[in-house]
Amino acid sequence: MANISILGAGSWGTALAVLLHKNGHNVTIWSIVNEEVEMLKTEREHKDKLPGTKIPEEIYITNNLEESILGKEIMVLAVPSPFTRSTAQIMKPFVAEGQVIVNVAKGIEESSLKTLSEIIEEEIPQAEVAVLSGPSHAEEVGKELPTTCVVGTKKKETAQMLQQVFTSDVFRVYTSPDVLGIELGGALKNVIALAAGIADGLGYGDNTKAALITRGIAEISRLGIAMGGKKETLNGLTGIGDLIVTCASIHSRNRKAGYLIGQGKSMDEAMKEVKMIVEGVYSAKAAIALAKKYNVDLPIIEQVNLVLFENKSAEAAVKELMLRDMKMEHNNLPWEE
Amino acid sequence: MANISILGAGSWGTALAVLLHKNGHNVTIWSIVNEEVEMLKTEREHKDKLPGTKIPEEIYITNNLEESILGKEIMVLAVPSPFTRSTAQIMKPFVAEGQVIVNVAKGIEESSLKTLSEIIEEEIPQAEVAVLSGPSHAEEVGKELPTTCVVGTKKKETAQMLQQVFTSDVFRVYTSPDVLGIELGGALKNVIALAAGIADGLGYGDNTKAALITRGIAEISRLGIAMGGKKETLNGLTGIGDLIVTCASIHSRNRKAGYLIGQGKSMDEAMKEVKMIVEGVYSAKAAIALAKKYNVDLPIIEQVNLVLFENKSAEAAVKELMLRDMKMEHNNLPWEE
Repeated sequence: MANISILGAGSWGTALAVLLHKNGHNVTIWSIVNEEVEMLKTEREHKDKLPGTKIPEEIYITNNLEESILGKEIMVLAVPSPFTRSTAQIMKPFVAEGQVIVNVAKGIEESSLKTLSEIIEEEIPQAEVAVLSGPSHAEEVGKELPTTCVVGTKKKETAQMLQQVFTSDVFRVYTSPDVLGIELGGALKNVIALAAGIADGLGYGDNTKAALITRGIAEISRLGIAMGGKKETLNGLTGIGDLIVTCASIHSRNRKAGYLIGQGKSMDEAMKEVKMIVEGVYSAKAAIALAKKYNVDLPIIEQVNLVLFENKSAEAAVKELMLRDMKMEHNNLPWEE
Repeated sequence: MANISILGAGSWGTALAVLLHKNGHNVTIWSIVNEEVEMLKTEREHKDKLPGTKIPEEIYITNNLEESILGKEIMVLAVPSPFTRSTAQIMKPFVAEGQVIVNVAKGIEESSLKTLSEIIEEEIPQAEVAVLSGPSHAEEVGKELPTTCVVGTKKKETAQMLQQVFTSDVFRVYTSPDVLGIELGGALKNVIALAAGIADGLGYGDNTKAALITRGIAEISRLGIAMGGKKETLNGLTGIGDLIVTCASIHSRNRKAGYLIGQGKSMDEAMKEVKMIVEGVYSAKAAIALAKKYNVDLPIIEQVNLVLFENKSAEAAVKELMLRDMKMEHNNLPWEE
């Protein structure tokens, strides 16, 4: 049994808190929003963000950050990516040497082009940072539907310890040393999900979406490998797997935001309607900067940026992607005659 | 303008006939079923298989095979895979040297373990055989939703000619010399779609399905590459792309058959309810034989076979797949410490 705190009481944080409690651990949930803490204490359910999943009485809920860090073997950092750095900054004074922080948000910081684990390591150098990622909608984990994830760390022992802590009958955890590949796949798939949502919103079908996803996977791999991620990871659960679930699912807020944009709404209107943070909007800008830095061609992510930030019409963007003049599918393959 | 005949009046044959007619070609549809020919002549719509897509009066519909072959530059073979060999046998006497046959069905012959293009080449050695594949549900092509496909041939000139013939504003065609990779991806994805459907039928969510699809892609690639297909093809539109569309789509008969099996129906009951040929059921057996021949591990396809042919319960099969003890996601990646 481990003492674990979940920092951030969104849908994913809440689902993981309930999972870890059921696995027999001593679980604390922290939120920076005092009204949220009071609501969760009273209701024992996050009716907005994770309806239907009861939060057992044994889970301690607090607004006190120090209390939620001291003496914990593991902290699960589950705040949206725009708040990762500021949360790490306020955590720093309380974190002991070697305390383990598992980041479960996805994103790339636009200003620094750093991944979230890099940001946490920068802000809290005394911590040991791990990531947990994979095709795992919180709503389904809350309902105990079979789910797989990957935990990534530099140290094998830490990865295996976290695997033990998170694994249950319905939640299978694999280990990996490729933290960067896991984080890049998780961040970039949100941008492709926006594109897939846009195609859906325009009324296009599965054929169009499959073409976008297939070429989106190729884009993510090109950039991820150029940056040092491993091909196996980008082709695995945290790459292709997470991309598929995000693009197909009714739960994905990135896909939903794209859908609203495809139906003619502006980025701001779409974000307002989705209510939650749409991480792909932030990662889209970062990805374009990374593409320039690493000299990689990202046609889909480029069109998503034009739609989000340059008022390009969604229809023109998708048409341009579909009508690009590519004669061979893979121009390195040789012909017989 | 080319003279083209479509052999087989199912949903895909009918959709391609209408597409090629709109592209300005002279199109004939042949069906071996005389009642179908009479119905199509009267109704000018295949209300069972492709409702809502009108067949223009200029498309000639016939039950006469000789008439549909003589003088045609291109024949599109659109019969279900179990009928590819028998149809090729009755075509043979009428086919001239160098006439082009484009096969658009997907499958592997269980008895010979041959792909469909290999069967056609064996039966009609005087023909030049090509394949057309990709994420392309007939229903959506009939509605002119943006779609991408790949045409594969040994000869570059033939591939480019077919690209010209099939391409339209909403139907983009790429060329490839990797006929084998295209055919293997197309056939094997139907088996993974059965598995995805089974998970859906059991009431599992997108997380489970994404895990199955991700590992399904890895299985298809392992076998396809061992047999001589190219990695690029298996990661492209006719591999991953087609797999995604098949596993996600409400249109897929393979996914639907799996869904019914997941809900507790037998294979025979499921096939009866779907009405159309469920190609994955045939390819599942062939894939297992190929796995033995090429010494490749295919855990998902193995479980699908046990469910289809050995009365294993769908739930036990999916649980076994989800609970396999895999410690690392990719055990070739090195740890830092």
